[in-house]
Amino acid sequence: MPNSHYYGLILAGGRGTRFWPRSRKRHAKQLLNVFGERTLIQGTIDRLAPVIAPERLWVLTSRDLRDAIVSQLPEIPKGQIMAEPAQRNTAPAIGLAAQILSAQDPHAVMGVFPADHLVARPAAFRKVLRFAFRGAEADRLLVVGIQPRWPETGYGYIEFPRGVAAGSHGALAVRRFHEKPPLARARRYLASGNFYWNSGMFFWRPRVLLEALRRHLPRTATVLAALPRFGARKFAGELERIFPLCENISIDFAVMERADNVSGIAAADFGWSDVGSWNAVYELLPRDGCGNAVSPESICLDAHNNFVDARGKTVALVGVKDLIIVDTPDALLVADRAHAQQVGEVVKALERQRREELL
Amino acid sequence: MPNSHYYGLILAGGRGTRFWPRSRKRHAKQLLNVFGERTLIQGTIDRLAPVIAPERLWVLTSRDLRDAIVSQLPEIPKGQIMAEPAQRNTAPAIGLAAQILSAQDPHAVMGVFPADHLVARPAAFRKVLRFAFRGAEADRLLVVGIQPRWPETGYGYIEFPRGVAAGSHGALAVRRFHEKPPLARARRYLASGNFYWNSGMFFWRPRVLLEALRRHLPRTATVLAALPRFGARKFAGELERIFPLCENISIDFAVMERADNVSGIAAADFGWSDVGSWNAVYELLPRDGCGNAVSPESICLDAHNNFVDARGKTVALVGVKDLIIVDTPDALLVADRAHAQQVGEVVKALERQRREELL
Repeated sequence: MPNSHYYGLILAGGRGTRFWPRSRKRHAKQLLNVFGERTLIQGTIDRLAPVIAPERLWVLTSRDLRDAIVSQLPEIPKGQIMAEPAQRNTAPAIGLAAQILSAQDPHAVMGVFPADHLVARPAAFRKVLRFAFRGAEADRLLVVGIQPRWPETGYGYIEFPRGVAAGSHGALAVRRFHEKPPLARARRYLASGNFYWNSGMFFWRPRVLLEALRRHLPRTATVLAALPRFGARKFAGELERIFPLCENISIDFAVMERADNVSGIAAADFGWSDVGSWNAVYELLPRDGCGNAVSPESICLDAHNNFVDARGKTVALVGVKDLIIVDTPDALLVADRAHAQQVGEVVKALERQRREELL
Repeated sequence: MPNSHYYGLILAGGRGTRFWPRSRKRHAKQLLNVFGERTLIQGTIDRLAPVIAPERLWVLTSRDLRDAIVSQLPEIPKGQIMAEPAQRNTAPAIGLAAQILSAQDPHAVMGVFPADHLVARPAAFRKVLRFAFRGAEADRLLVVGIQPRWPETGYGYIEFPRGVAAGSHGALAVRRFHEKPPLARARRYLASGNFYWNSGMFFWRPRVLLEALRRHLPRTATVLAALPRFGARKFAGELERIFPLCENISIDFAVMERADNVSGIAAADFGWSDVGSWNAVYELLPRDGCGNAVSPESICLDAHNNFVDARGKTVALVGVKDLIIVDTPDALLVADRAHAQQVGEVVKALERQRREELL
């Protein structure tokens, strides 16, 4: 049974340019179904549902994406899917939700969830989720760390005290947050045993977060406190007018790395991935005997370790390896898997050329 | 001015499976426009036109392709674009045309031209063409050899006597025909100076060819001699009935390698290619500074020596090299350039799977 004081905030403002050509301005990564029927944001809602009822979920996104999200998530009350009037990174967005929730429910505890991640083992995830909510009830600012499985250079790390045991589920002190490391350092983190992947999932009481904002990000806290009550006639107009005055900063920089009541959960991995590129999708999909992640209609001759996403089209691969191939009606991407991070640069090139129809 | 006794036979029965997915059962290689506006067969007609008027051109093709050829070649009288009732390789097809032409014009001289080759320098080609027709007027069976530019393993070779000079244009004795050689042998051919590429272009008086058929392929000669006059009411029905009785054999095996009145022209290269694969197309196209043969709308990041044919679609290449990428509405090919010959095997795989819609 969902706890009636547990709320979820889904952060869905990102664009995911590394998923071009399937991701577009009005159809970002979180709206893609790269792993099956449901899209990444639908999967996020699905795995939360047993703990957080959809009517207590909130979504913050951009104007470009709101309509698509409303249509993908009919379970969530429309008014709770909000477009930020301006892109101000995660701290103001989270602060806004905390402001609304603290006014609506003095007993509220909220979890913050990126919209575009993947969890392969949702039951294990929900176990962590329940511990995290409970940890946050003790007025902590709580982050979920995930025991690393490889020396990933694309994730930030949380440093716990030495000797931490994965899966203990208690709220632990956090020594420090670390940026995405170069490979050699990531290897040391992995070997040390007390460095965990930063999942980007946070838990707190809205009033505790607002206190932290008042202390560490006072301008944003002041701006948000000046808003009329959510649901009031003037709310939308005022939000539009004053939200852009908030600082443009992430919650990590603004609060987590500065506050002294930060704790973390050292979770055993629940099949989590931030699905950072098409290559991450490849790594997560089932593959044939030659290592190809392709539809069964594909023809592979001397082809190895390729990823193909080409809906409704037969693809033949001949003598190629380690390719990412993504086909859409107006654009086709062919990239080397090792260059998957560079796909975002294609979008930058299209922007420079003002090719709006492909963005 | 075209000579009114010069006739051309365009052999257009091939399927060109190595050009899948653009080549299909009803849309073979010769019907593709891989180098610009005009298709390969249209280019063949275009470069012949100043020497052979279109009304004296004949086309032999398959039933699957005839309609498309009729619509691509409105200059040629419809009746002269004939579908062979059965696939019997080149000897019966050429014999059929010779049979018809010898009855229509006792002074006829015919040239035989594959429909799907490329000639980059048509004026130089026509110079050779005129010499070849003149050589054939002296009752020879004449083949055009082309001075090789590299040790190609995909072409047959003609061995001339030692000391032959390219571009002499006289009709020379042919010592022997040689099959497609392995690379080491092709290198020796190239070094020897008297081995020329077999262009598959032949010239003769129809009656001289028919004599050679009577001697070297008597069954086919007898079958063809039994046909009613072309244009007679019964012609089509009889052709349908008896053509399948012809031997299934190439003109090279049936006649050229056996007859004693075979001569050749040792032509300097006129930019000829048999366009044997997508890689040959790549080699023949202009390329950008990174060696990519792509449309100007493409985005190339760290991409080198790739070929892209994707009409009406923007293609982004990231970190890839030596790829052949051919996109069509229902099928996409991504192949390594070194595996271009293997593309025909994709078609074989589709045939085994009975995927008619893609053949």
